[in-house]
Amino acid sequence: MGKHCAILQVVGYQNSGKTRLMENLIARASGLGLNVGSLKHHGHGGAPDLHGKDSSRHFEAGAAVSAAEGAGVLQLSARLEGSALEELIQFYSHFNLDVLFIEGYKHARYPKAVLIEKEEDLSLLDQLTGIICVITDLTVPPLPGIEFFTKQQVAQSIDFMIKKAVKQIDREDILPD
Amino acid sequence: MGKHCAILQVVGYQNSGKTRLMENLIARASGLGLNVGSLKHHGHGGAPDLHGKDSSRHFEAGAAVSAAEGAGVLQLSARLEGSALEELIQFYSHFNLDVLFIEGYKHARYPKAVLIEKEEDLSLLDQLTGIICVITDLTVPPLPGIEFFTKQQVAQSIDFMIKKAVKQIDREDILPD
Repeated sequence: MGKHCAILQVVGYQNSGKTRLMENLIARASGLGLNVGSLKHHGHGGAPDLHGKDSSRHFEAGAAVSAAEGAGVLQLSARLEGSALEELIQFYSHFNLDVLFIEGYKHARYPKAVLIEKEEDLSLLDQLTGIICVITDLTVPPLPGIEFFTKQQVAQSIDFMIKKAVKQIDREDILPD
Repeated sequence: MGKHCAILQVVGYQNSGKTRLMENLIARASGLGLNVGSLKHHGHGGAPDLHGKDSSRHFEAGAAVSAAEGAGVLQLSARLEGSALEELIQFYSHFNLDVLFIEGYKHARYPKAVLIEKEEDLSLLDQLTGIICVITDLTVPPLPGIEFFTKQQVAQSIDFMIKKAVKQIDREDILPD
């Protein structure tokens, strides 16, 4: 199963700022006119919160997939047979995305930003593949092929990642000079 | 775009008991071992409630589609370009369903049960196509090809609809004698 759009991951331990970085990446990329998707691994155990009232009663009654649609928005819950990341990415191909930002699934192989808060989390840099940048306020010796940003440099880190994303789909033309 | 599974609708005005009937249909069909999907039209205007915290921040940041996955459940929000029912049904083909129960979209053409509470709602019976049964406590003159059930006969109405659904997919073998 091949990639159908640019893919970038944001990984790091809990409370390292992943969701905020994802929000910034999504807002920037959609502001550039890209069709953006996101996927978050609900890493704290258990299923994500069910929707509000709209289709949760259908889902709880045993539907494999249930959804509510209104005003151009679909809210869908699905039980997955296989929840391998590759299958989920394939599922997103339905949406004709330009870029998919993935929060979590740190052991996947896609290009990724790693958020590091604590000394003991630095071991991630040895364990993970595809690291393109690290965002941390710790002092870390340089690593070949990896950019480092401090948490103050969030704007620069986002610029860097967006460039990497559009490069994957040959859309560097949409970036401002 | 052809049907990829059995499709039955449940329609009626607000507070006529559509969601409860849907729950019963879904529970019965999934209890028979069928892979069941559901789709609800959020008819009160506006988009359905967003998910809890899990992926709503991604969606609000501008993602066209965002999801959270955990413990084998996917919660997804998507902005639809076209929200025609036919396109939504096509989208469900990804899930290899046996039957899709649809709540609302009363003007669609699929086989449907109509819930009638009030005299003034009886005009629905002239307006809609595909009616296979009517559930009402009102006295209604018989209509050719349409079964009538009272609200006390909910079990019979569900048996009737489940039979109609499995017949669409030639799976009458799974019904108990």
